[in-house]
Amino acid sequence: MTGIKDTSIGIVGVGLMGSSIVASLLAAGHRIKAVAPLAGELDLAAVRIKEQLLLCEKGALLAKPAHFYLSSLTISEDYNVLHDCSLVVECIIEDVEAKEAVFKKIVAAVGKDAVLASNTSAIPISILQAFVPGPERFLGIHWAEPAFATRFLEIICGEKTSDQTANWVFELAHLWRKEPTLLRKDIRGFITNRLMYSVYREALTLVENGYATIEDADKAFRYDAGSWITLMGIFRRMDFTGLQDFPVIFNTLFPGLSNTGEVPAVVRKLMDQDARGTLNCKGFYRYTEEEAGNWNKAFEAFNQDIYRLAALYPAEVISPVLK
Amino acid sequence: MTGIKDTSIGIVGVGLMGSSIVASLLAAGHRIKAVAPLAGELDLAAVRIKEQLLLCEKGALLAKPAHFYLSSLTISEDYNVLHDCSLVVECIIEDVEAKEAVFKKIVAAVGKDAVLASNTSAIPISILQAFVPGPERFLGIHWAEPAFATRFLEIICGEKTSDQTANWVFELAHLWRKEPTLLRKDIRGFITNRLMYSVYREALTLVENGYATIEDADKAFRYDAGSWITLMGIFRRMDFTGLQDFPVIFNTLFPGLSNTGEVPAVVRKLMDQDARGTLNCKGFYRYTEEEAGNWNKAFEAFNQDIYRLAALYPAEVISPVLK
Repeated sequence: MTGIKDTSIGIVGVGLMGSSIVASLLAAGHRIKAVAPLAGELDLAAVRIKEQLLLCEKGALLAKPAHFYLSSLTISEDYNVLHDCSLVVECIIEDVEAKEAVFKKIVAAVGKDAVLASNTSAIPISILQAFVPGPERFLGIHWAEPAFATRFLEIICGEKTSDQTANWVFELAHLWRKEPTLLRKDIRGFITNRLMYSVYREALTLVENGYATIEDADKAFRYDAGSWITLMGIFRRMDFTGLQDFPVIFNTLFPGLSNTGEVPAVVRKLMDQDARGTLNCKGFYRYTEEEAGNWNKAFEAFNQDIYRLAALYPAEVISPVLK
Repeated sequence: MTGIKDTSIGIVGVGLMGSSIVASLLAAGHRIKAVAPLAGELDLAAVRIKEQLLLCEKGALLAKPAHFYLSSLTISEDYNVLHDCSLVVECIIEDVEAKEAVFKKIVAAVGKDAVLASNTSAIPISILQAFVPGPERFLGIHWAEPAFATRFLEIICGEKTSDQTANWVFELAHLWRKEPTLLRKDIRGFITNRLMYSVYREALTLVENGYATIEDADKAFRYDAGSWITLMGIFRRMDFTGLQDFPVIFNTLFPGLSNTGEVPAVVRKLMDQDARGTLNCKGFYRYTEEEAGNWNKAFEAFNQDIYRLAALYPAEVISPVLK
């Protein structure tokens, strides 16, 4: 395993997420070998990556002009470009069989020491690592979108992932300007999705039973939780609120929270209407085409704003910042 | 019931939360009658309210100098100052018997049409409204701290609260520059606490079972959820992510989420050590006195920053903002 300066990284799958990861890693100074696995997608992929890198530039996240970083990019339909990569990340659709086929091609192209990773957010790493020889070099690396404008990065060990592999990627991630988390025991949903889906479950149950409207649940989360999450996270928040009251509150509140294991009726109803959210302007809310487009722009702009704001409040060194 | 211009509001209980509510309502243009119910607390209460109003001024939340608003404040130990109030809000400790005693005194001082409210976040409104004659005029109004620098406001109906009462406060709250939510059916924890405690439950279970460290759960929440919560809330986020994938994810993930009704062992252990969080420098994290103080300052500063940032992204009118 090598240092960042001479680490080539392969990215297989250059949809929106893959392109955004490529841009983020180019910005961090890596040579990138990108593979567009779908026939005829090469040109579109090149356009997408350039777009993402221009977004980085627009967000003042690059030290040099975008074209400087583009010179470190190779993009191809041929898996053999991956031959000198120390790390290859798969970023294709969430389908176990499709991923198995892609990893067969990756393994055939790379050295036997290359670290292999999946950007899956849904499939257990222990399942995927069974597809490669040397499963100890396999792990999950889970970016949030857009990869270049969030500090979030989740590193997930499967049953057979070696500590050496996990620690190497963990170190590397700091050079990507991430605040990585390391999940040493594989669990469905990893950390961040489990936390968020517990909120989704409770919110859906409240709406389904007529306690809250969709609009009110959104308002409460935006303006209450939103006023401290980026500063504190969960446990720091509990410390700040005053721990002594929690046992009584937990005792009265936990037993009444939603424990459902079912897909809520309100969601099933939306599925019957082929509602896909902003994608087709039909969801919990309705959208015009223009409004749906504006949510994309708003998300892009907000991400950059909150990225900059978060940088003013690093948890570990809150003292110097405030002096 | 009257309009905002000539609405006097009474606040009973002027600890940190009560003082912050007084400052927020003075800033909105109300005449305020504050009652300090604990003997000998009057002077301290006056100091606290002034401090909170100076924080408003510092945060550029006032149109005129702080002393202008202070001239609309009466503060007393005598409940009779409440006689002309259209709305009286109780902000004392979370103790049912103490609240009952305070509401007896409030009822004796105010007119029979005055709207009565509690700022409780823990006690069902249906229980508290039984303490007053005319329970249809009673409801919960739940601020987040600091009241003057958050848009969050939860209005909670008890079983007997009239629509007229709820709607009047809901309208009024918009004049306070809030984004109020209205809970028409009383439920333990109301909206926002149920959402957050479902996250606390899952996070505590993950830590207790060795899947995540405290630091990692905090990082994941700060940098992943934090990158969209203030912009989107919950249901808008689901729309934006693409609804079509949720049924499969819910089916695989919901059944494995924490359903515990118990106080987690990790919390019980902290209680045994008398850990109260930043208050006594002992919690999930350890603090020096200086660090604990810095978290207070950071929270104050971050609240103002996120309050301003949120104003750039009003959900209802996202289009004009982006043009």
